Amino acid sequence: MPDKLTPRSQDFNKWYNDLVVTSELADYAPVRGCMVVRPYGTALWENMQQALDKRFKATGHQNALFPSLIPMSFLEKEQHHVEGFSPELAVVTHGGGEKLEEPLVVRPTSETIIGYMMSQWIHSWRDLPVLLNQWCDVVRWELRTKLFIRTLNFYWQEGHTAHATSEEALEETMRMLDVYNDFAVSEAAVPVVPGRKSDSEKFAGAEASYSLEAMMGDKKALQTATSHFLGQNFAKAFDIKYLDKDNTLKHCWTTSWGLSTRFIGAVIMTHGDDKGLILPPRLAPIQVVMVPIYRNDAEHSKVMETCTRIKAMLQDDMRVKLDDRDELSPGFKFNDWELRGVPLRIEVGPKDVEKDQVVLARRDVPGKPGKSFVSQDDLANSVAEMLDTIQAEMYRRALKFRQDHTHEPRTYDEFKQVVEDSWAMAWWCGEKDCEAQIKEETKATTRNIPLEQPQGRGACIHCGKPAQAQAIFARAY
Amino acid sequence: MPDKLTPRSQDFNKWYNDLVVTSELADYAPVRGCMVVRPYGTALWENMQQALDKRFKATGHQNALFPSLIPMSFLEKEQHHVEGFSPELAVVTHGGGEKLEEPLVVRPTSETIIGYMMSQWIHSWRDLPVLLNQWCDVVRWELRTKLFIRTLNFYWQEGHTAHATSEEALEETMRMLDVYNDFAVSEAAVPVVPGRKSDSEKFAGAEASYSLEAMMGDKKALQTATSHFLGQNFAKAFDIKYLDKDNTLKHCWTTSWGLSTRFIGAVIMTHGDDKGLILPPRLAPIQVVMVPIYRNDAEHSKVMETCTRIKAMLQDDMRVKLDDRDELSPGFKFNDWELRGVPLRIEVGPKDVEKDQVVLARRDVPGKPGKSFVSQDDLANSVAEMLDTIQAEMYRRALKFRQDHTHEPRTYDEFKQVVEDSWAMAWWCGEKDCEAQIKEETKATTRNIPLEQPQGRGACIHCGKPAQAQAIFARAY
Repeated sequence: MPDKLTPRSQDFNKWYNDLVVTSELADYAPVRGCMVVRPYGTALWENMQQALDKRFKATGHQNALFPSLIPMSFLEKEQHHVEGFSPELAVVTHGGGEKLEEPLVVRPTSETIIGYMMSQWIHSWRDLPVLLNQWCDVVRWELRTKLFIRTLNFYWQEGHTAHATSEEALEETMRMLDVYNDFAVSEAAVPVVPGRKSDSEKFAGAEASYSLEAMMGDKKALQTATSHFLGQNFAKAFDIKYLDKDNTLKHCWTTSWGLSTRFIGAVIMTHGDDKGLILPPRLAPIQVVMVPIYRNDAEHSKVMETCTRIKAMLQDDMRVKLDDRDELSPGFKFNDWELRGVPLRIEVGPKDVEKDQVVLARRDVPGKPGKSFVSQDDLANSVAEMLDTIQAEMYRRALKFRQDHTHEPRTYDEFKQVVEDSWAMAWWCGEKDCEAQIKEETKATTRNIPLEQPQGRGACIHCGKPAQAQAIFARAY
Repeated sequence: MPDKLTPRSQDFNKWYNDLVVTSELADYAPVRGCMVVRPYGTALWENMQQALDKRFKATGHQNALFPSLIPMSFLEKEQHHVEGFSPELAVVTHGGGEKLEEPLVVRPTSETIIGYMMSQWIHSWRDLPVLLNQWCDVVRWELRTKLFIRTLNFYWQEGHTAHATSEEALEETMRMLDVYNDFAVSEAAVPVVPGRKSDSEKFAGAEASYSLEAMMGDKKALQTATSHFLGQNFAKAFDIKYLDKDNTLKHCWTTSWGLSTRFIGAVIMTHGDDKGLILPPRLAPIQVVMVPIYRNDAEHSKVMETCTRIKAMLQDDMRVKLDDRDELSPGFKFNDWELRGVPLRIEVGPKDVEKDQVVLARRDVPGKPGKSFVSQDDLANSVAEMLDTIQAEMYRRALKFRQDHTHEPRTYDEFKQVVEDSWAMAWWCGEKDCEAQIKEETKATTRNIPLEQPQGRGACIHCGKPAQAQAIFARAY
């Protein structure tokens, strides 16, 4: 029997930390702050990878692989970049038994080494754009860690592109934010707000950073993907130049964008409930689990025969598992697969065999499981439809949850109350100082400045000066 | 125009080094001995990954992800392991701006950290076997490097499994050698000899290592995959124990097995010719390239219309590229795609449009390209058949090449001559000293002791003592 999970409603933090481990998504590694992604978590990540990779390729990107060791001097070429990343570096000082002349860092991100290679590969306007993506792991020396959300080692993809003009680079930055948005919504059923980061929250070395922000079940915000317009900062630092049609040498304009295993954390904290994970059907490693129900050998063979036939019927179109463990009770199995968030359970008992039916039990319906009896005829279609319904309902519920907990305070007193336990959409002057004071006074930070803005103008919720735009303020992971 | 490639027949080494770079498979990174795998090479590697991953999953394995940083003390727990890997380690001594209490190594291989995690996860015989695989990159501080063949950083998969009995672990070791064999033959058209490594050539920490050895175009041997029976060495070092059915605690038996981007080197050096790469259809990133041929605008639009239609007809079933670059001549394009090893070229000119035909040009036929005229009707089938033929012929040619250059010398004088420029299958006493002397005198090492052995017995080719078995002796990468 799996250990009893701390209910989400009782202690969200403990629920999350326990759930990641007991559902066997991940585990703590024997290196401080590092994680091991177990097979169940890896299968979930691989489904995410496939869904994203397809979108990257459809938008013209190609994958490439760059070394994980980067000369320290490379990071120092872009001033903001090195300032941002220095405190987080893991440094290799010895190789092959000898002290290195120049230390290498284990990559925290690859703008520098990819920038260097781009400078070798790009010569003419004909070589542009260069549209690359890399799937890899990175190391950042974080102090406070949490599985999937913030660990010393994590897995991600990092896109890196070079363009002839500022306009094209900006267009790419927004295109990839859109791609992430589509992935979050269509595949993960995670509603997100696309917007621009404030200057104090932007990527070290970027001209402008854009993010997707999602509301977790405890109403804190989680940044789930970012897309950066790097201007010519890295092109100048690494001399990425091209000969334009007018026969003059020009610096390129570059972008970078990333999404990591942190997104698994977003899926857990968006959808999970007291009983465990609820995984969106499109990403779930197991979409349908079949549990046979029987009391004796005669029933067992009858029920298993039906189960095997049904599994064969479904498995070409979906990821099905038949739980044929003989030593465990159906009740145990129900709990076990609910903990692991399998979206749909098929129960088959002797009566179902007789009636040519099965029981479908939805994981996502709050409270009692939404059970229904469905004919075995045309089951592949009924199950596929049910999975689509679950996917859509999960998104709708998560979106409603965010809407219900996002408010527009009219005074700073209201604002302070709102950010205690929800998101505030508030007018903001755009000043760093104002932002810092709000953070100190309320623990809420600007998450982003949503691309979609209301009509009209307002005054800064904190200082009263004319506001630039509305921003999301929230406590965040 | 791509730079003129050094012909293979003139200088094999230079041909290889130039080809890897000019075909844009890989490039030298700005860190000594490290490589960048460019999009074309990455696409090839991804096709290899898919073909292998499918086989791993079909044999019950699951992917997982372990940190790339491993405590130095972990390596020291298995004596032979640390002796073997110490000279090759990259060591992280600083993290987050501070000196670490214990240095971490960037993983050269993951037996240690996976062994540690297995000891946490395995409790009872019910938990066995544990069948894991990891796709990742590793770092080994090599001194003499060569793109794909031996670099400081490379990409691979490493399988790690734990079993209740020695028999099961041995069975797994051989199963995975078989899986690699099937991959090499069916997907890469690379003939390989499965066999056992001598004690001096085995993996540091293994009881027994098995390998696949392939003959390259210069008749040197390349080890293309390995599978290790680790006995209880790592289980004892990391305390991987299970409670058996008889209620006693027992150590597990473990295996590990790996195949890396080195295999790309094997594909290049097995099949390539003076004009460049020849990629096996099943792995080629582009299986069919279409080159339109025209002299004026009227011809251009007519030919492009046919090309676009044919591309649409083929692209569901195969990886097709239409080379519509307007500023380049057909001759340039022919050379370019021949350099990159695309297995089949479709040429479409105005006459072909009229006659409802296309020209198929095979990349693999030695000497003149094997051109044929094929009707546009049912083209998807003709092309698919042609690709199958190419795949089969490539394997047949490579196998014949190895057979033609493998000899069974009867005297040590003959042996010395044979290993100058081919493989020797020779009886060997099995003694380390004899092996070392042969190596010193001839530069030939034991590649492996083939699983398939001739009838009868013989005397060691070097010392004349009764031989244990025949071994392959060859100069090797």
